[in-house]
Order: sequence, then structure tokens, then C-alpha cells
Amino acid sequence: MIEYRNLRVAILGAGSVGAQVVSLLLKHGDELAQRSGAGLELVGVAVRELDAPRSAQIPRHLLTTDAEGLIVGADIVIELIGGLEPARSFILTALNSGADVITANKALLATHGPELFEAAEQVGAQLYYEAAVAAAIPIIRPLRDSLAGDRIVRIMGIVNGTTNFILDRMDTAGETLESALATATELGYAEADPTADIEGYDAAQKAAILASLAFHTTVPIDRVYREGITGVTIEEVDAARKAGYVVKLLAIAERLTDRETGVEGVSARVYPALVPRTHPLAAVHGAKNAVFIEAEAAGDLMFYGAGAGGIETASAVLGDLVSAARRHVIGGPGVAESTNANLPILPISNVQTRYQISLSVVDQPGVLAAIANLFSEHGVSIETVEQSVSSTTNLAGETLATPGATLVIGTHEASESDLSATVAALNSSAVVQNVTSFLRVEGS
Amino acid sequence: MIEYRNLRVAILGAGSVGAQVVSLLLKHGDELAQRSGAGLELVGVAVRELDAPRSAQIPRHLLTTDAEGLIVGADIVIELIGGLEPARSFILTALNSGADVITANKALLATHGPELFEAAEQVGAQLYYEAAVAAAIPIIRPLRDSLAGDRIVRIMGIVNGTTNFILDRMDTAGETLESALATATELGYAEADPTADIEGYDAAQKAAILASLAFHTTVPIDRVYREGITGVTIEEVDAARKAGYVVKLLAIAERLTDRETGVEGVSARVYPALVPRTHPLAAVHGAKNAVFIEAEAAGDLMFYGAGAGGIETASAVLGDLVSAARRHVIGGPGVAESTNANLPILPISNVQTRYQISLSVVDQPGVLAAIANLFSEHGVSIETVEQSVSSTTNLAGETLATPGATLVIGTHEASESDLSATVAALNSSAVVQNVTSFLRVEGS
Repeated sequence: MIEYRNLRVAILGAGSVGAQVVSLLLKHGDELAQRSGAGLELVGVAVRELDAPRSAQIPRHLLTTDAEGLIVGADIVIELIGGLEPARSFILTALNSGADVITANKALLATHGPELFEAAEQVGAQLYYEAAVAAAIPIIRPLRDSLAGDRIVRIMGIVNGTTNFILDRMDTAGETLESALATATELGYAEADPTADIEGYDAAQKAAILASLAFHTTVPIDRVYREGITGVTIEEVDAARKAGYVVKLLAIAERLTDRETGVEGVSARVYPALVPRTHPLAAVHGAKNAVFIEAEAAGDLMFYGAGAGGIETASAVLGDLVSAARRHVIGGPGVAESTNANLPILPISNVQTRYQISLSVVDQPGVLAAIANLFSEHGVSIETVEQSVSSTTNLAGETLATPGATLVIGTHEASESDLSATVAALNSSAVVQNVTSFLRVEGS
Repeated sequence: MIEYRNLRVAILGAGSVGAQVVSLLLKHGDELAQRSGAGLELVGVAVRELDAPRSAQIPRHLLTTDAEGLIVGADIVIELIGGLEPARSFILTALNSGADVITANKALLATHGPELFEAAEQVGAQLYYEAAVAAAIPIIRPLRDSLAGDRIVRIMGIVNGTTNFILDRMDTAGETLESALATATELGYAEADPTADIEGYDAAQKAAILASLAFHTTVPIDRVYREGITGVTIEEVDAARKAGYVVKLLAIAERLTDRETGVEGVSARVYPALVPRTHPLAAVHGAKNAVFIEAEAAGDLMFYGAGAGGIETASAVLGDLVSAARRHVIGGPGVAESTNANLPILPISNVQTRYQISLSVVDQPGVLAAIANLFSEHGVSIETVEQSVSSTTNLAGETLATPGATLVIGTHEASESDLSATVAALNSSAVVQNVTSFLRVEGS
């Protein structure tokens, strides 16, 4: 029997992830010690209520309500409480006492990341967060280490399982958004209050973390452009399918050039987009996550797997635990979070992409020419136009004031600012009744 | 301007990967220094001939034919010569002089890995090899670090781009193997002598490396079971498509139980297999690579990208370079390669999977019953049978001695040893003319 140096591990939180971490750590402790070169002694699990129901059995003597007391004296602290406070204070206490910290807390990192990384660097400790983005999928370490010698051009991620489940149901089962959301709630893929998921807040936090890491630049959460999926209609999903696309909620982090100054910067954004069916991201079904990376030298890469779940997230936490333990055995300070590129964060107006716009227009001669002129005046070049005459009654059976037609216009690559000016002009044009759909096209 | 500590980097070899590493290092040296925390001074590039043509420009003063002289005094040595010798001796010299070593040499690792890792551990140096498997796809670090807290159950990899290109052409363009190989050669996806690729030797080396890493066990190359794709016919590929499968050359590393002793062990093997069209690996087209991992906690993961190419491989080498530089800055010994699980390597006979077997049989009453009995006697349970009467003339127009029929039999999960006994019995059965196809089914 080899005698290992002993490392004291404290866990904060015993929710679905915390309970699984405890269970796996107790079950595979010997194996993890062999891989780490250090014994991993679980000294306690801090919880709010000792008697709350847990998803996995935790030995009673490990539970404590004294988180601060547990943190002092621990070599490695695993924060799985979630939310901003007290998670932030606990992590700062742990780092300041020299402990390495492992967290799965994306909200905290996206909001207070720089403060936490700074605290870690001050004392030479390390803050690990593989579990904060796309749960079990190794994405932080590949970006931070494997691709550290390359230049990332763009990241497109399906990083929210709830919205991917809903959009996939709309696409494959023909359900409406409301019905697909109800199914997601029923199956446990959506929370009772689904706002954070369906409005894209969760994806935006992950976009901020990915953009910061990929471009060595602090990207605060409030600089991430965000649209959720609540505006996506079954008609849009159907039209997308017919045109060879699928609608996916994408978190995009991209190296861009500022249109005004010509300076290089970073764009981070979240919106539902049309993805060609041939793109690897189009094959990501159900609640699965995937992160597609375009790098200058490596070319296209994709990382695919479970983006949520207690035991899946626990896998990432335990990987970080082995890394932290190895670092303690080797000694020396942690690797500081690299933000030295410090690129400007560019607003959405700088984004260049293709767009698909649906309009209902009055059915009279010269309309197409008028609309084509309007695009051209704003510097947006049209690639495809499809026109269909709509019936003169609406779905409720009421006769429409003006007989209408539907136009679906696909553009060449254009800038977001030119496009929004075009849409504003369309909205105030006499021949346009309504801009019924406006979606960006990504990955083509 | 920050003053960094300077690290001396020596490169051995200036082929397509080496030339790209030099070019990227000279171009992005400042960025890499920022990310590493150390200046990366390229002190020289060892080549056999100073005047050989190169795929990228290398400043003349960096070239030398004195590899040994270059290695002495380098902090980090990048070996990109390939082959067993002199690469092995150079790496040992470098490690013994305390340098970290980065290599893309899969043949060397699969053959002399344990000796090299042992040498590194003795002096506290580190041997990096992200580029040795699947080029640009980060797979070594995810397995070694991200999944270090999990238990890998199985890895299935498309790790040879040449054979994937050929099988994909057969499937999507209906080409024969010979024609697809000719296309691959023409497009530069196959070497003049394609043996290492199409006979599965290259994939077997990668299977040995992946199995060693995933199961913390030394898996020598000669313990990897290997079949190439040269026996795969267009008829098999067509039949697979009709049945909802695609034929892929898979490198498989799996945790198995020894059928005799009940002891847990490792199986590493390479063979063409039927993969269901719905499996993520089925969507890996052309010369792309992908590694699919099943882990106990993380569930299913897939890593996808370019598996070859000068600049793509250079991306992985430079990622290792940044890691090596960070380690030098931090100090302390490298992390030793973990082989402490030391599981037994199990022969192919222990593998349990499903099989699809095609037979031509004599067309007479009672044949199906005879054959079904024969499977049953060997403990193999039949799941599906499809029968078609073949014409009484063969493709050359000759009249067959006995009118024949074709049987396609799909089995339930069975052991390789029971299956090979069954096939041997089929081959000597009076009612069987020929076993025309025998493929394993994986990923279902």
C-alpha cells in the first residue's frame, strides 16, 4: 500500500451535483488517489439544512451547516451552491486561505470572474471551472491548454439543453413552442420557471465564459448580446426545414473587426439562428450540448456530449479535483487566467452574417422592386427571394383589408447595423404589412 | 514591454508539420509568450539535408544537421522526425538532459512509450503527445485531465482519415474500394504505399495509445487486435446502407471482463464495423476523425475534427509547447504517465458484440433449420434472418453446380470466441457454399 500525502477536500452544497460528487468520491477514492498522487480526504459537506432530502446518500457525520468553518483548513474547496452570494464570499475566503477552488457556477464566473481569478493569482492558487460550461463535455481545458498555441476565430455553441430540446421537438415532432416547453417541463428538462433558459440568460453566461477564455479578454456578461427563443414560431421552424436549415439557439464568440475603427475586437452573442442541415451542429438533438470551434491552424473542431445532469457535471468536477490534487503534489503556483490580449468588446452592430427575412406585403405590381430598392439603399445585397400569395382571409377567417403576399428574402453577408436599418425601413414602408420573421444564418 | 524568462526551443524535423510549427511560432511568438509567461526562443531546426525543399519558408540560419548538438542546452525539444530511430534516441537524450519533449510520433509511442515515459519520470521532465492521436483534435488532455475523475467504459475512434475517406466514398459515391483508394491517392489523402493506413496499422497504434491512457495500463501495440479495410466490398457497404448502417474502421479500447477468470481487463482492437446511421460517428465524413467516449459518469462524449494535415497537427504541437512553457515557469516535476491500474490485456476472444454474417447456401428444404441449429449449438442467438434466392448463374455467367440462396444473419450479442467457432462450423457445413461477409456491429 502506497502512502500518499493527504489533501483535505471540502464540498459546499449537496444538490444534484454535490450529492453525486460525494458519492463518486467515496466510491472511487482509491482510484482517484492513484491518479492524483495524493489521498483525497473528504472532510465535510456544507449544507443549509442537515435533514433536507438528497438525490444520493451522504454519510451524516460529513454534513455541516458551518461552511466558513469547513473552508478553513481545506486544501481544495468545491463550490456547488450556485448563485452569486454566499458562493462568491465562500470562494474568496477559500482562495485567500490558499486553497484551490473548483466551481460549476457559471452565473458567478460570468459576473465576478475577474475578481475571483485575481484573488487566485494573488496567492498562487488555482480556480477550476470545467463544469461551468457544457457540464461533462471537456471544453475549458481544450480551450485553455490544447488550443493555447492556436488562434481561435469563432466558437458556436449549443450550450443550453432545455432550449435545444424544445427547438428539436418543434423540428422533429412538429410541436409548437408552448407544447414543446410543456413536454420539456414534464420530462425534467425545463425548470418550473424556465426564464433563464428560454430567454437565453444561461447561454449568455456561458458565451461570456467561452469568449473570455478563447480570446484572452475579460468579457462581462452585460456585454453579451442576447435574444431568447420565445419568439421562434413553428412556421419559422417549418420554413427553415424546407429551406435546408434547422433553428438552433447559438452562443457565439467571435474575433471581429470594428467597422468604424478597423480595430480587432471580440463579439459575444446569443440568438436563435438558422444552421444548415449539413453542419455538424445540426445533428445535435434533444438536450445534448455541443461546442463547435473554428481555429486558424486546427480548422474545425466539435465537442459533443451531455450539457447538464448531476452525475455528468460531477464527472467534470472530479476531473478538476484530480488536476488540483496533482498541482498540490507538484507544488508551485497555479496558472493565472490569461486576459492579456484585452481586446475591445464590440457591439452586435459589427457582426457580419447572412439573414433570412419574411415579410407580408400588399399584393400589387411593383412591390418586389420597391422592396429590392430598399435593401439596396441600405447596402444589403439580396441572394434569394421566394414569393407566395397568401389568401385574402386570415387564419381567423376575417377578410384582410388588402390582399397580401409573403416574401422570404435571403441576403448575402451583411452587417447587423445595415440590416437593422433595412428592417426599420421595411417596417415603415407603405407596401409592407409586417416583418413576420427575422433570423440570422450561421455556419454556412 | 514585459520581460519574460527565455526558454530555448529546439525542433527536430522540418517536414509538413515541422515547417508549419516553425512558421506559426515565428508569426505568433509574442502571443504565445504572453500565454505561456515565458519567451519562446527557437534556437534551431534539425534537418537531414539543409537544402531539401520545404512546405514553408524556414530562415536558413535556424537550420542545422547537428541534432544532438541542438538538443543539448534546449529547454523544450519538439520531435517531428517520425519513425522509431533516431527519434527514440533523440528523445531519450533530450529527456535525460532535463528538457521537456513534445512529439507527434504515434509509432514510437505505441512501441517504446513505457521506456520514454519512464525516462521522463526519472528526471521529472514531461513528455507531451497531443498531436500523436487525431492531430488537431484535443483528445489526450481531455482523457488525461478532464476525465481523470471518471471511469472510461469504452472509446470508439475514427482515427485514420485515409480509410474514413475511402469508406465514405464507397458509401456516398458508390465507388469500389480500389476506385476510392485511387481517388484518395489522387487527392493526397493516401500515401504512395497505403499499407499502414488501409491495413489498420496506423489506427492500431492510436488504439494502443488511447487504451493505455484511458485505462491507466500499458497496452503494447502487439496486443492490439487488427483488421484493415482491404476485405470490405461494395456489396457489404450497400447492404449495410440498406440495413441502416454505415461501415467505419473503428479503433476500440474497452474495459472488459475475462470470460474465463472473471477478472477485469482491457481490450484494444481495430476492425471495420457496422455503425448505425443514427450514431454520431456515422456522420463523420471524408477524411475527418472523431473519438467517441463512453464514461461512467460523463455519459457519451464525442470529439470531432481534422485528424491529419501539417498546420492542423502544428496546432496541437503548439498547444503542448504552451503547456510545457507554463510548467517551466511554475517549476516542479511533470505529471508522471499513469499506468497504475495495470489491467490485464484481454484477447479478442473476450469481446462481446453483435455480428452480421452473410452466407451463400444451397437452395434446398431444411437449410435454414440446419444453420439455425448450428448457431444455437455454439451458444449464439440469432436476432434477424433475411433470405434471398440467387440466380443459378454466377456473375461470370457460368451455371452454378447447385442453385444457391443468400442468407444474411444478424446475431444478438455474442462472444467473439463463440462466433468464430460458429463461422468455422459454417465453413465446414455441407449446406453452406461460402461465408461471404462477416462484420461486427458497434455503437448500438
